[in-house]
Amino acid sequence: MSKNLTKRSEDYSKWYNELVVKADLAENSGVRGCMVIKPYGYAIWEKMQAELDKKFKETGHENAYFPLFIPKSYFSKEASHVDGFAKECAVVTHYRLRTAEDGSIEVDPDAKLEEELIVRPTSETIIWDTYRKWIQSYRDLPLLINQWANVVRWEMRTRLFLRTAEFLWQEGHTAHATQKEAIAEAEQMMNVYADFAQNFMAIPVVKGVKTANERFAGALETYCIEALMQDGKALQAGTSHFLGQNFAKAFDVKFANQEGKQEYVWATSWGVSTRLMGALVMTHSDDNGLVLPPNLAPIQVVIVPIYKTDEQFDAISETAKQLMADLRKLNITVKYDNRETHKPGWKFNEYELKGVPLRVAIGPNDLANGTFEVARRDTLTKEIVTNTDIVQYLQGKLEQIQSDMYNKALDYRDSHITEVNTFEEFKEVLDTKAGFVSAHWDGTPETEEKIKELTKATIRCIALDRVEEAGTCVFTGNQSVGRVLFARAY
Amino acid sequence: MSKNLTKRSEDYSKWYNELVVKADLAENSGVRGCMVIKPYGYAIWEKMQAELDKKFKETGHENAYFPLFIPKSYFSKEASHVDGFAKECAVVTHYRLRTAEDGSIEVDPDAKLEEELIVRPTSETIIWDTYRKWIQSYRDLPLLINQWANVVRWEMRTRLFLRTAEFLWQEGHTAHATQKEAIAEAEQMMNVYADFAQNFMAIPVVKGVKTANERFAGALETYCIEALMQDGKALQAGTSHFLGQNFAKAFDVKFANQEGKQEYVWATSWGVSTRLMGALVMTHSDDNGLVLPPNLAPIQVVIVPIYKTDEQFDAISETAKQLMADLRKLNITVKYDNRETHKPGWKFNEYELKGVPLRVAIGPNDLANGTFEVARRDTLTKEIVTNTDIVQYLQGKLEQIQSDMYNKALDYRDSHITEVNTFEEFKEVLDTKAGFVSAHWDGTPETEEKIKELTKATIRCIALDRVEEAGTCVFTGNQSVGRVLFARAY
Repeated sequence: MSKNLTKRSEDYSKWYNELVVKADLAENSGVRGCMVIKPYGYAIWEKMQAELDKKFKETGHENAYFPLFIPKSYFSKEASHVDGFAKECAVVTHYRLRTAEDGSIEVDPDAKLEEELIVRPTSETIIWDTYRKWIQSYRDLPLLINQWANVVRWEMRTRLFLRTAEFLWQEGHTAHATQKEAIAEAEQMMNVYADFAQNFMAIPVVKGVKTANERFAGALETYCIEALMQDGKALQAGTSHFLGQNFAKAFDVKFANQEGKQEYVWATSWGVSTRLMGALVMTHSDDNGLVLPPNLAPIQVVIVPIYKTDEQFDAISETAKQLMADLRKLNITVKYDNRETHKPGWKFNEYELKGVPLRVAIGPNDLANGTFEVARRDTLTKEIVTNTDIVQYLQGKLEQIQSDMYNKALDYRDSHITEVNTFEEFKEVLDTKAGFVSAHWDGTPETEEKIKELTKATIRCIALDRVEEAGTCVFTGNQSVGRVLFARAY
Repeated sequence: MSKNLTKRSEDYSKWYNELVVKADLAENSGVRGCMVIKPYGYAIWEKMQAELDKKFKETGHENAYFPLFIPKSYFSKEASHVDGFAKECAVVTHYRLRTAEDGSIEVDPDAKLEEELIVRPTSETIIWDTYRKWIQSYRDLPLLINQWANVVRWEMRTRLFLRTAEFLWQEGHTAHATQKEAIAEAEQMMNVYADFAQNFMAIPVVKGVKTANERFAGALETYCIEALMQDGKALQAGTSHFLGQNFAKAFDVKFANQEGKQEYVWATSWGVSTRLMGALVMTHSDDNGLVLPPNLAPIQVVIVPIYKTDEQFDAISETAKQLMADLRKLNITVKYDNRETHKPGWKFNEYELKGVPLRVAIGPNDLANGTFEVARRDTLTKEIVTNTDIVQYLQGKLEQIQSDMYNKALDYRDSHITEVNTFEEFKEVLDTKAGFVSAHWDGTPETEEKIKELTKATIRCIALDRVEEAGTCVFTGNQSVGRVLFARAY
């Protein structure tokens, strides 16, 4: 197949949009802003889900499911939340259609709901309305629940995976007896996300907290993991919120403590979404197509036969099948592409586009010599490997690719954190090198807002590991207690 | 804990509703007709999902995800489908809320959608609108796709799991080059469902086809599996539809065959839902609570310590932990309930209510004698087992419970299929013994409709293994070519 992919250096945004569609990850649907996640893309999402779900369960969480619809009045109960979430959303007003006189389908005006229902943009309100019934005593705490669900936010400008009206995600919602325990939970889940991003997706992240401006609507603290894409723009890859007692108070969720006294419950919520698919593509992929870390690749090794005669094909197939059997014993996902309808060159292109980490080609010469030609997707390099070494070689290579991809992304990220001390430098770095700009800030929302207006850069986070150091704000010259990370972001 | 469960013989319906809530499977939410699936219920659903998903993948299907919303006009494209599905449904008409002058939240009248969106009641239309883009040639076929999703049907009378406005399900949607292949697929998936119901859920089912009256809106043939609940009412547990070329024609999905000629594609769709949770409860459970087949039990073995002193507790805990470790090696899910806040009797009641298949009690005498007291949930019987045999005993018992539960349900089902030859008998059986009534029927929708009006019984299916025999219709006396199964149904 011919890839005809725009180069990143020509138009990064176009490259991304084309790649997502051409690599069969997702496409736009007939419904404004809603995407179709195609089988190949969904298979990657399933691998993310499985690993995250395992980590959630290992940390004591259980899954449950709450309604898709939220009565409009629920949003009014938590004042800051409503401003953030009850604005651009899908509103269900009727519950019946009817056939019009001209045979078309129309909304039945007699079937109007008494109270409009909002398609959940996030589930804090419906879940805390439920928790009121579930929590009476300290014995019911902590309540550690996660939900895998679809949510809808009526975005005007959408991009596949990065910003869609409907997206898939998980949302954890926990309830605790003490502030300390809730904060520990929020921090724990940020660490779970960071571990997942780095060790599973091979995406280095900065762990930090959001400034007041960038916090989740209703949160007292928002922990986040921030990744850096290859165009130097940041991407928020996951957030974990300490919600204080805001939702408990809004929904009257109290518990009897050990002394029998009624107290409001402490809350967290945390989530990652199909946006991670966008982060995956933009961190690793290149002008030839996807580059997938072996942990997330639906196919880890593809075997392509190269032959002219039926006899050659049969002999190669025998070798290929033995290799497949050996690899499967090691839980390596392998595909033998024996389609006669496509030439090897076409197949090579296809698996490059799809980011299959290792490609094994077997031709008549290989059979004669007892060798395989192995190509690495991430480096586009080839090696000849002998029959006796092949299985161990492939297994080792998959591990190496996983860590090489992480290190490559880490090198890029680390070389794109630039300390600046003047606003001129700040703007220059943003416009040339991009990446994270590490600068002193006076701590006020006003300054943050002003910088955003002037440069489109926001404070991505106050890194948890930042050094406390006295300095002067890059914009106002006022006092600062340490640097924060600015960037333009997705 | 005290169970206070209504007895099945007193009020079967009340028993069901109470049990679903008390056993922590699900509860009603603040949103009309929408349920909350609680963690214990969801854990059972996850086990169903995992097994079904494995079976779908083994039969060559891939998962994907399609939009939640369907433009209203899509439903008009397939005439019979619209009557079945585009009536009672949730309609999104607006995309924004605003704060009113009095501070309340109201729908923004300026944010009206040009075309209303329907929250999917099933996804044939949106999926076939997508398939038009995916299918060009016979090489693109078969297309074998499944989706795990939530759907919404605006039911007026709802019951937890059995009939809810929103429910969770999977829907398979496949496209084929030939009629024969599509029919084979629809039959295969019915067999997958039957195998799952029988071997995994321990629920015997009758495989059959629906009459024209009961077919899916838009299908040429609906295959189904029908189960029988303990109150003698039938429950449709899964359906698989041969859709002919109806959707391909409605959405213009053609392919170039091997000769290069354009043909319409052949379709199937098939689904099971959280309704299966209702079937599970009503097939096996008793007046003491849930009875779960080991394959679906979130906890397969629970260990309860019985002690008076701390020394006893420590010694029992040591034995319990060894047993847990041994069982986990065999992939048996085990919980040690060492809570000091609850008495053993309370715990016994709780695990009975929750349907844990095996309960192991360990007291000081057991420690002294090297024994365990093992109680079976399904039979409520107890045995004393020695230390040396316990692991193998428990493993074997789980297998036995799984097959005993199936056989018990099978005996009940088989003894509740009654052949009748007159309409008097027909009505008497329905009103006394209930179950399936096997009767000759003249094959007309009119007779079927009339019988339904008079008795509330519908034709559940024409069993695939029915004997072809000449007879006379139990209602009209007209000719019949074989018996069909009638029942009142959920």
